[in-house]
Amino acid sequence: MGDSRVPRDPQLPTHWFNILHDRPQYVTSAVSRSRLGGEAKTAGHGALLQQPLSLARQSINTADRLIPIPDEVLDLYAQYRPTPLRRAVRLEEHLGANARIYYKYEGANLTGSHKLNTALAQAHYYSRAGVKHLVTGTGAGQWGTALAYACQVMGLRCTIFWVRSTLRQKPIRGEMMRLFGAAVHESPSNLTEVGRRALKKDPEDIGTLAGATGEALALAAEDSESRFAVGSGENSVLLHQTVIGQEAVSQMAALGDFPDYVIACMGAGSNFGGITLPFLGAAKDSGRPVRLLAVESAACPKLTRGRYLYDLSDALGTTPITKIYSLGSTYVPPPVYAGGLRHHSAGPLTSAMYADGSLEAMAIDQLTSFRAGMLFCETEGILPAPEAAHAVAGMMDLVSLHPRQGPPLVVLVNISGHGLLDLGAYRRFADGEIEAVTADEASLSQSLSALEEFNQRIAVPAEAT
Amino acid sequence: MGDSRVPRDPQLPTHWFNILHDRPQYVTSAVSRSRLGGEAKTAGHGALLQQPLSLARQSINTADRLIPIPDEVLDLYAQYRPTPLRRAVRLEEHLGANARIYYKYEGANLTGSHKLNTALAQAHYYSRAGVKHLVTGTGAGQWGTALAYACQVMGLRCTIFWVRSTLRQKPIRGEMMRLFGAAVHESPSNLTEVGRRALKKDPEDIGTLAGATGEALALAAEDSESRFAVGSGENSVLLHQTVIGQEAVSQMAALGDFPDYVIACMGAGSNFGGITLPFLGAAKDSGRPVRLLAVESAACPKLTRGRYLYDLSDALGTTPITKIYSLGSTYVPPPVYAGGLRHHSAGPLTSAMYADGSLEAMAIDQLTSFRAGMLFCETEGILPAPEAAHAVAGMMDLVSLHPRQGPPLVVLVNISGHGLLDLGAYRRFADGEIEAVTADEASLSQSLSALEEFNQRIAVPAEAT
Repeated sequence: MGDSRVPRDPQLPTHWFNILHDRPQYVTSAVSRSRLGGEAKTAGHGALLQQPLSLARQSINTADRLIPIPDEVLDLYAQYRPTPLRRAVRLEEHLGANARIYYKYEGANLTGSHKLNTALAQAHYYSRAGVKHLVTGTGAGQWGTALAYACQVMGLRCTIFWVRSTLRQKPIRGEMMRLFGAAVHESPSNLTEVGRRALKKDPEDIGTLAGATGEALALAAEDSESRFAVGSGENSVLLHQTVIGQEAVSQMAALGDFPDYVIACMGAGSNFGGITLPFLGAAKDSGRPVRLLAVESAACPKLTRGRYLYDLSDALGTTPITKIYSLGSTYVPPPVYAGGLRHHSAGPLTSAMYADGSLEAMAIDQLTSFRAGMLFCETEGILPAPEAAHAVAGMMDLVSLHPRQGPPLVVLVNISGHGLLDLGAYRRFADGEIEAVTADEASLSQSLSALEEFNQRIAVPAEAT
Repeated sequence: MGDSRVPRDPQLPTHWFNILHDRPQYVTSAVSRSRLGGEAKTAGHGALLQQPLSLARQSINTADRLIPIPDEVLDLYAQYRPTPLRRAVRLEEHLGANARIYYKYEGANLTGSHKLNTALAQAHYYSRAGVKHLVTGTGAGQWGTALAYACQVMGLRCTIFWVRSTLRQKPIRGEMMRLFGAAVHESPSNLTEVGRRALKKDPEDIGTLAGATGEALALAAEDSESRFAVGSGENSVLLHQTVIGQEAVSQMAALGDFPDYVIACMGAGSNFGGITLPFLGAAKDSGRPVRLLAVESAACPKLTRGRYLYDLSDALGTTPITKIYSLGSTYVPPPVYAGGLRHHSAGPLTSAMYADGSLEAMAIDQLTSFRAGMLFCETEGILPAPEAAHAVAGMMDLVSLHPRQGPPLVVLVNISGHGLLDLGAYRRFADGEIEAVTADEASLSQSLSALEEFNQRIAVPAEAT
């Protein structure tokens, strides 16, 4: 016992799983234009965001199927991982389902969601590269909380632009980010040109993740020691999140089972990719098929109603342009509680997977998701975040459609975060005050037209596709 | 995989550890008096509270060293247990300590603390006995939340009297109790005679746990289908909590280590007893000594400054009278954030342990405890509840006193709950707004006098001691 480090849990993965090795076709280039009509520059998404080489390379690496997790990150993972994978026996009984329902629970860490898995990794790589300050935009607040904590641990400064509509719903998350030393700004803010422009247009603008991202990018560009950190969508982020699926594959194996379906909610794809990608690897190795279901918010149905076109991640137009499933970066989803599902597009990797039929998608409204979340709480003793409640609802749909006779359906659902800071919303659900919210059709049709027109205008060079 | 129940984790204990087998001298009788001067009745504490026989017997059972956990309770434990036991490597490095620091973390379940361990057990026993409605008083709110959830799971109604000073600090905990279907009342309330009396005396009365307990007892006495459920102090409650220590003993063994000290904060003794008692058993079996440290709040120093005399658990005078370390049931501790440590007395079992030298005690002020809690958060990624932060502070004191040369001190500290709903308090700490709060000397001296006078008056019959 004289060593300075504890023995790690044997179930804690030591490597991330890199799907780009098995499917190099998912490496997509991106186009950078400082503004529309400017000079196009083609490269990996990460390189265009001035990420350290270590990180940018992870988004385009097709050589290595397994990427070792750095020791410093692994030691921090060991503080909250492995996370539980359990069978939802009481829920099964309640549903009377012909199914074995398993769930993976990512909400028990300090910051409350899976976001910490990539926040620690990114803070590690940026700090090793000499960056002193990370800036980001956050929707539901989970990503901001995770990055704030990771920056504190690694000794970096942190600035967060937080979508106004959710910031005002969750004062406690703001307390948490500030407690970890982060500067937190409501977005739109007066700190950046894009924010000021939005406020001028509408002082009551409730904000979008695209807008907050735009503000963060603008601030990060102001000095050389700052960088923009991205919470989802990017290949490297999905890679870091595969620690979830790597664990889940071995935990399922230890229980002697393998899922027919792996289910997760879909923001831009990081928790979805995190749990599902290693199962694609396991399925390839074992020859046993697995199906993947992405559950999105009916208020922001980027897969089921979006276009697979070139688009931006932010409203300003500074992010690299990639081919993604998108509702258009000007779409403003109604202010549903699942702030993490309000991003207008899926990331390039999950978009490519949807395009080639590797994943199925379903849109769930928030009333249905709160109902599912509350039932999960009553039966399994975990209150899912509103985002994760969508995954639970999608899973329940799937299970209810499965024939009562014959072999049971085996499903694994990812509970990406807890809902303890969303109790007010659950309370309003219990009081019958939550309504089913679907897409804002006016904003959607306008935004989709703009997206299509944008694609005609940019005439993306063939070599960039 | 055709069975309806998942295989349980092999580290999940199947039995509670009953210290009364090894130390029958800790079985103490209690005296019931409906009011002072009324007829004395001597029996076990549980029997006097009209507990089901199953439960009341657990407080006086000296025959069985191990008590099997009922299947229904075990299935619910399996939803959040085993809880993590980890080594705090980064904290060790930060402190430069000659110590191996381990912690057990009870905060990752839905209700956020160890209280769920006994809430589920009690709701099980009461529901089996035909009781329909449980009533209780809660200080910090953790016990109320846990009981509300357990009642929902078992199909019981639940009513909670919550000490006003903490209810107002933690609106989210109230949301949670109500979400689980409980009726929540601020105490003092207008619902009971004891509440009305307190409000008449002072409409701004901030409340105490003794007062809330008195109100709960009064309401529970109003009909035959209702019972008062007790969150700490009682032998049966400590028994249920030994699931923590049972797990910790095997987890430490799996790591090849054994603690010199086991440390927990002290409210009335349930988290303290829960983690420590099984180590007394393990120490007896192995011949290897273990020391126990109880950390109390300097605002409510029942062990370090109390008297070992006969006293009540409530302000009304309806609870059974037992010999306990107490500051007197009329003592009003200043409103510190660690509401769970504001109870005026330790339970009979931990009091007897302190009296015979089986445990050591230390009082910590809240400023010191917030500092320790914040450091634990920064190094280990867990934000302890203000109560648990006292245990961390006590542990750090112990470790700092240990000589830098020679064998390292091995300590195990119980983090009984998370502090995510206490972020406002941590924020005020970070802003320098938290002060070191010690006992209210005027109230203390008055209350101790009253306690001593009460003991002279009641002239407890010798056979009850």
